[in-house]
Amino acid sequence: MRATVLHAPRDIRLDDVADPQLLHDTDAIVRVVAACVCGSDLWSYRGVHPDPHPVRIGHEFVGIVESVGADVSAVAPGDFVIAPFMYADNTCLLCRHGVHTSCPNGGIWGRPDRHGQDNDGGQGELVRVPQADGTLVTTPEQPDQAMVAHLLTLTDVFPTGHHAAVAAGVTAGSNVVVVGDGAVGLSAVLAAKRLGAASVVAMSRHEDRQQLARQFGADHVVAERGKAGAGLVRELFDGIGADHVLECVGTKESMEQAMRSARPGGRIGYVGIPHDAEVNLPSMFGRNIGIAGGVAPVRGYIEGLLPDVLSGAVRPGDVFDLTLPLDKVAEGYRAMDERTAIKSMLTL
Amino acid sequence: MRATVLHAPRDIRLDDVADPQLLHDTDAIVRVVAACVCGSDLWSYRGVHPDPHPVRIGHEFVGIVESVGADVSAVAPGDFVIAPFMYADNTCLLCRHGVHTSCPNGGIWGRPDRHGQDNDGGQGELVRVPQADGTLVTTPEQPDQAMVAHLLTLTDVFPTGHHAAVAAGVTAGSNVVVVGDGAVGLSAVLAAKRLGAASVVAMSRHEDRQQLARQFGADHVVAERGKAGAGLVRELFDGIGADHVLECVGTKESMEQAMRSARPGGRIGYVGIPHDAEVNLPSMFGRNIGIAGGVAPVRGYIEGLLPDVLSGAVRPGDVFDLTLPLDKVAEGYRAMDERTAIKSMLTL
Repeated sequence: MRATVLHAPRDIRLDDVADPQLLHDTDAIVRVVAACVCGSDLWSYRGVHPDPHPVRIGHEFVGIVESVGADVSAVAPGDFVIAPFMYADNTCLLCRHGVHTSCPNGGIWGRPDRHGQDNDGGQGELVRVPQADGTLVTTPEQPDQAMVAHLLTLTDVFPTGHHAAVAAGVTAGSNVVVVGDGAVGLSAVLAAKRLGAASVVAMSRHEDRQQLARQFGADHVVAERGKAGAGLVRELFDGIGADHVLECVGTKESMEQAMRSARPGGRIGYVGIPHDAEVNLPSMFGRNIGIAGGVAPVRGYIEGLLPDVLSGAVRPGDVFDLTLPLDKVAEGYRAMDERTAIKSMLTL
Repeated sequence: MRATVLHAPRDIRLDDVADPQLLHDTDAIVRVVAACVCGSDLWSYRGVHPDPHPVRIGHEFVGIVESVGADVSAVAPGDFVIAPFMYADNTCLLCRHGVHTSCPNGGIWGRPDRHGQDNDGGQGELVRVPQADGTLVTTPEQPDQAMVAHLLTLTDVFPTGHHAAVAAGVTAGSNVVVVGDGAVGLSAVLAAKRLGAASVVAMSRHEDRQQLARQFGADHVVAERGKAGAGLVRELFDGIGADHVLECVGTKESMEQAMRSARPGGRIGYVGIPHDAEVNLPSMFGRNIGIAGGVAPVRGYIEGLLPDVLSGAVRPGDVFDLTLPLDKVAEGYRAMDERTAIKSMLTL
């Protein structure tokens, strides 16, 4: 089969590799229908993350089950399935607490599994799925072509934006600032409005992203950053700042922006992988700012979000502004790296 | 009148000072019935906080209203009142959000008020109370002598422990670890049990404090610290750690202990004033640990806690293990500094 392999920073190729096999009775093999490139893939692509090379890559995919191991009962060949960006057994205590990302039987695509066995990345034709019963979520019927993009967002960006909103405690009627206008930030706007936020500010300096933020329900767009941006947020929100701030970047600047934008007693939901981000605990203490979030336990959210996606009540797949066939995967990375695309979808 | 004055680190005296006067129509004068020494007073006492000297000190007192300004209507001369450790108007948007500690008309005892006028500390015979209507909470009737200690804890330690539990999201049936066996930590044990926690671990190495923790409802005491302590916590809680951790110290070690003791997806409520405490954001991110809390907005909690105090359902005043007349205030500080007392109460 063909699968995406990162050979060195910015050297990404579609290679011929061995087809995956069922290795455990709990495995399934899925034929990928669509995959996509994540902002976090860019850290590897740019060489910021120290990866082994060559390395399989990609962790967002939907597809059709091709075969299943003897112990798999929840999915069957022919099922259309959504795969969260980490696999998990969905039965252990931590999964039952909703923290599937800490499942002791879980892991991430493209890295060795807990048996030390190689694991496929999501940007390829076939994927061996460990813990298939716990990991995969089926759709009630085969989706039409137009629905695939929306379902694909359920593997990562949409539930990650949702996690930011949930961790920040967004409720009906509250007000929200979203820091970050990447695919996750835009998804967080959508998620906050879906949860009933009365007013959502999207912080964005890019015309195309501002437009998508508004389409996703943002009530205001603030282009300014730093103290000026926080000042505008305070003006919009009673002179005190936002109840909830969704931090969707992970840099020092974005976290500072989030802290500045929250009102005393406000809560930050953070889902941007912290690279150089830090928090000033004494300042948080004095203002009673809370922070929660982390790597999004997507698996626990998919079933809750799926009905609104299938009904068309939300259209999270509009975040894809570039769709390419899998053999143009390098172009998909380049477009995101150069910020000419918000998010690239790969079709098979 | 006589009031406690810190003249230099560890030089604390009861001095003769001018009686306070009503300066604003929103002021009241309160005759103190009982006051106490706070762990945070020790930072000033020890010279760790850079205070001006001489400086008035103390921020926990209950008493009887002596006189009120023209605009005061909620309290009247003769009322027994509880004063939270910060005053606030209790009407502004931030107070209505429950963040009385960020009230723009608020402040702390012993420091100049927003008019630049000197403000009495709580460890004296009389206190001018700004924003008296918003600040003071009356009891339905004059309490008897034995009840005074319990009411006095409502000025700070008991609601501060309660704030840790609320910020950590303690609910009925959840499990909790309390880091810190000072008066606040012990109060946090009491608060967590009052909120219905199924199992509370008090981390304490001191026999007398362990005993009080058990009296306040702790189900387990863990004397070990660091990784060993966290290991014991995991053993007690399903091998994964605690749902909620209440951090009641504010040091680097105590915050690390809190982080280590929380399960993935757990929440830390922190009320220890952070001195050298910091958090490791990437580690929190990976484990989905949230942290919330800060300087406790005590004013918003007093009315909710008062009925259980008056009924005797909780006995938070048992945290006082040393009671002295005000003129022995120096002894009260020394005992807490040398850790021969958990918390000193001063009677007038």
